[in-house]
Amino acid sequence: MTKHINTTPARGPADHSVRDQVVDAATEHFGHFGYEKTTVSDLAKAIGFSKAYIYKFFDSKQAIGEVICSNRLAMIMEIVHAAIADAPTAAEKLRRLFKALTEAGSDLFFHDRKLYDIAAVAARDSWPSAAAHEERLRQLIEQIILEGRQNGEFERKTPLDEAAHAIYLVMRPYINPVQLQYNLETASSAAVLLSSLILRSLSP
Amino acid sequence: MTKHINTTPARGPADHSVRDQVVDAATEHFGHFGYEKTTVSDLAKAIGFSKAYIYKFFDSKQAIGEVICSNRLAMIMEIVHAAIADAPTAAEKLRRLFKALTEAGSDLFFHDRKLYDIAAVAARDSWPSAAAHEERLRQLIEQIILEGRQNGEFERKTPLDEAAHAIYLVMRPYINPVQLQYNLETASSAAVLLSSLILRSLSP
Repeated sequence: MTKHINTTPARGPADHSVRDQVVDAATEHFGHFGYEKTTVSDLAKAIGFSKAYIYKFFDSKQAIGEVICSNRLAMIMEIVHAAIADAPTAAEKLRRLFKALTEAGSDLFFHDRKLYDIAAVAARDSWPSAAAHEERLRQLIEQIILEGRQNGEFERKTPLDEAAHAIYLVMRPYINPVQLQYNLETASSAAVLLSSLILRSLSP
Repeated sequence: MTKHINTTPARGPADHSVRDQVVDAATEHFGHFGYEKTTVSDLAKAIGFSKAYIYKFFDSKQAIGEVICSNRLAMIMEIVHAAIADAPTAAEKLRRLFKALTEAGSDLFFHDRKLYDIAAVAARDSWPSAAAHEERLRQLIEQIILEGRQNGEFERKTPLDEAAHAIYLVMRPYINPVQLQYNLETASSAAVLLSSLILRSLSP
């Protein structure tokens, strides 16, 4: 195996801040005009950079969208982790996880509609950021089930990955932005009803 | 209470057959060109009736769509009832119900795409036919749970309507055509995994 050697000069803080500048401007611009309607040329014009200069930092519009999407999904994961951090039981963690996810998704939909649209494109087209988010959530669910099995709250017969995946599938229509938009009206009551069903399915 | 007296002559078999003719032609026409793109004028031209004549039998394009939709949903309910009729247990009935619904929905999507689109419009806009179908399914789920409770297969602590509604919510993303289109790839494996989760939630 050979280590990849970069023949161009290493990117320093200046490059880093150009990337940030592009992402900030794109967040603003996509937020106003929508992701799908904005081109890299539009962005370049708005920021005052040349299109070629932007392409030195990002391969495509999607690459910029990916950064915005990853940032937003990281925020959602922070909200989720904060919500479950001091839950007294594994059962309560699952309830709070489901509630926090539907609330964060609905908030994004109602207060940041254009950024919600990027998230919807990311989910529809399975962008790496969206797929990684799904995987993180599935792992978090698995971890909570494991915790509940270890302290005797949950049954231990069902294969762990099967139980975690099925629970993720129950939650998905309220997490995935493409689907959440059809479930917004019922999302908060559904999260309560479905959490109870999930917990009944986990009872020893 | 007064009985409603029809001042126009009672509609006989001839009228009935005109309605059928319009519905048949509309099924054909919507099937080719799509529901949303077709107008009542297009239909009238295609059938060789005047637009005014069609309006004697149907209040709107949606009223025609409703008949087509109801017919299709009645077919789906027949498939479901046939699938569960000889199931030996209530648990097996739930499994078959879920499987039959996802299969019938996927079939419609892949083999009758334009009619699927009417079903999607009906679900999106909550047409009475779609709402009635949802209600029938919810009642069928309730009936199966009750059967399973009576013969000792299922737990009896959860309020019956809560259990039935939660199970319906688990199934909905694979039944509702607007949502099923995002779940097609995973629908058949999801139906198996989620049936098992539902049955775990019902265990005494």
